[in-house]
Amino acid sequence: MKKAILFIIDGLGDLPTPKTPLQAAKTPNLEKLAKKGITGMLSPISRYLVPGSDTSHLQLLGYDPKFFYNGRGPLEALGLGIELHEGDVAFRANFATVKDGIVVDRRAGRVDTKIASSLSKLLSMEIEGVKVIFKNSVEHRGALVLRGKGLSCNIGETDPHSKDPISKCYPIDDSAEAAKTARIVNKFTEFAQQRLSMASENKSRKKPANAVLLRGAGEYQEATSFIERFGMHAICVAGGALYKGAASFMNMDIALVPGATGDKNTDFIAKANAVASALASDYDFVFLHVKACDSAGHDGDFESKVEALEKIDMMIPILEKTGACIIVTGDHSTPVSMKKHTGHEVPILVYRGERTDNVKKFDEKSCALGGLGHIEGKDIIPLILNITERAEKYGS
Amino acid sequence: MKKAILFIIDGLGDLPTPKTPLQAAKTPNLEKLAKKGITGMLSPISRYLVPGSDTSHLQLLGYDPKFFYNGRGPLEALGLGIELHEGDVAFRANFATVKDGIVVDRRAGRVDTKIASSLSKLLSMEIEGVKVIFKNSVEHRGALVLRGKGLSCNIGETDPHSKDPISKCYPIDDSAEAAKTARIVNKFTEFAQQRLSMASENKSRKKPANAVLLRGAGEYQEATSFIERFGMHAICVAGGALYKGAASFMNMDIALVPGATGDKNTDFIAKANAVASALASDYDFVFLHVKACDSAGHDGDFESKVEALEKIDMMIPILEKTGACIIVTGDHSTPVSMKKHTGHEVPILVYRGERTDNVKKFDEKSCALGGLGHIEGKDIIPLILNITERAEKYGS
Repeated sequence: MKKAILFIIDGLGDLPTPKTPLQAAKTPNLEKLAKKGITGMLSPISRYLVPGSDTSHLQLLGYDPKFFYNGRGPLEALGLGIELHEGDVAFRANFATVKDGIVVDRRAGRVDTKIASSLSKLLSMEIEGVKVIFKNSVEHRGALVLRGKGLSCNIGETDPHSKDPISKCYPIDDSAEAAKTARIVNKFTEFAQQRLSMASENKSRKKPANAVLLRGAGEYQEATSFIERFGMHAICVAGGALYKGAASFMNMDIALVPGATGDKNTDFIAKANAVASALASDYDFVFLHVKACDSAGHDGDFESKVEALEKIDMMIPILEKTGACIIVTGDHSTPVSMKKHTGHEVPILVYRGERTDNVKKFDEKSCALGGLGHIEGKDIIPLILNITERAEKYGS
Repeated sequence: MKKAILFIIDGLGDLPTPKTPLQAAKTPNLEKLAKKGITGMLSPISRYLVPGSDTSHLQLLGYDPKFFYNGRGPLEALGLGIELHEGDVAFRANFATVKDGIVVDRRAGRVDTKIASSLSKLLSMEIEGVKVIFKNSVEHRGALVLRGKGLSCNIGETDPHSKDPISKCYPIDDSAEAAKTARIVNKFTEFAQQRLSMASENKSRKKPANAVLLRGAGEYQEATSFIERFGMHAICVAGGALYKGAASFMNMDIALVPGATGDKNTDFIAKANAVASALASDYDFVFLHVKACDSAGHDGDFESKVEALEKIDMMIPILEKTGACIIVTGDHSTPVSMKKHTGHEVPILVYRGERTDNVKKFDEKSCALGGLGHIEGKDIIPLILNITERAEKYGS
């Protein structure tokens, strides 16, 4: 049976101004794949719906977010290597700076990762019999997990997203579980401020990391593994925690790639080489993720998006040499003119899927005339199972 | 945030004989929008399903008829300005001529509207404690509402649609509610004939309006408003009662446009100007409807359909000047060769939705190669929310 690479270029799609970054970039290798393969347009979730990165990746990898998603927290926590138990409630967490009761910096001056690691040790505690687990990642970022009986993710966030006091966490349903969880979050928020304010690491900082903001509450529920559902031994090559977390959620392996940072300075070639190594061993499927285009889109930085695409293009020959089927697409559009996710379709190309079309370029306008037509996120795994000859017949 | 016009040209789609009316018509302004925008084909409800005008409009405006439709009556009644209460059962009504127990003219010789208004006053009554409300509209047309406890729309119609006696109304389920409602309808039919036969207005008429035929029974259920569901302050510019009724059902405002008749003699330019005024004030969204193409299709009148399209084309510059995003499409095909609704897709164009394609004309054959591909009615509101930057992200 054939092997496959699903290459998700985060925030790939764009709008013409008058060219799109994909139209402006020099991508001879992607062009070659488009010429030799078949192309189309993809609505990652459904037509014109604006996908989040979390929901879109679940959908593209065959895990319908309607059933498998209730918040981003568990995916982030898994991505940081926290092992989750059924019923855990997890959050995305930020170190922040509070002054005179106001959140003056949501990122605590992008606190150094080492200092954040040291401060993190102050944040493990137990509240009302519920275990609180905190883990930091890069700079101000981290994840928090509540583990105990009777918790709920139907609660609000504490991140005010503006120069305001930390938001109080409120339950958003009438259950005892939501009330209890909100209470614990508020207590944690208070304890965290007390402990962090007194920490020696913060003494000389202009922007002390003296508070923790929580958002994206989600309840972890175990899911059937990717290999059990789709019969492919899978590995994830990604930098960002969310993407590794989504892969962990599906019980994929996670490649350790030095230099894969999840930003524009990532080592693109190291990631491509990691894909090649994985396929040379016994993996059947690689979920390959690159974040840089999305970041450039959010920053409204056309040149940076073009540059990222040109670097991505250099990965293609390495991927091609593996002999695997290659699917290249995005999880959503992040147009540089909009600086946010939009519901516009993203181009998709399928290389070594046997069929071909007349499209010779890989961009939003060309692929709209492609032989695949318009497909949706739910179609991706069936497509891969079909072209790798793994699909089971329905009926006889 | 941007504003949008959804321009629904009723019965737009057609079949080649050897040209379609859209291909034969001179529509330079629609062509310009097609050139500068992006096009595709639309299945108003689902692929190849033959839409009614009622179900199609509900679907295109984001109200899935599977949940929001159980008969045309309530939409017609709302369109005539009757205020409905939860549980009301409403019907489309026709004045008809009965002679020797046979319906000899289903339209009572297209009775003059003034005479019909006068006769209508005889038709308000109370039967078994149920209030009967009748309101006429243009010529023989009107709506009837039953208001009271324990009514059901699971009943047959009284319109024989042929030169036969008035059909007896039968319940179509075993409920007491259906039995009661059918009984009331039959009593009303009898009382109406008695009262109308004796009316002085009918004395000298060759085709007296001496009976009322009822069809399209539906039970009114209140729906969440359009603004609450989609966040757009919306207004409807239409002539026909059904379309205004659908808009009322969604709690949209209804523009008063003198000269908007809902037929081929409508004042096209007055309607376009009404759209421009609405968008110059605080409306975000205009549902614009023109009926003339559908009527020409039902009449099998190719020339008349071409003429209507050319008049519609003259509206476009006025719409364009508003600066709003413009979506032009139809609610179904009414091919002149078939004289009825069919399930063939209708062309759609999206102007100011950012993306473009290579299509240069607005017709059935050209748009089938458009960059939108084939979309469905349920995709229209998400499309509009996306291009006007109103869509909320699903996930994070």
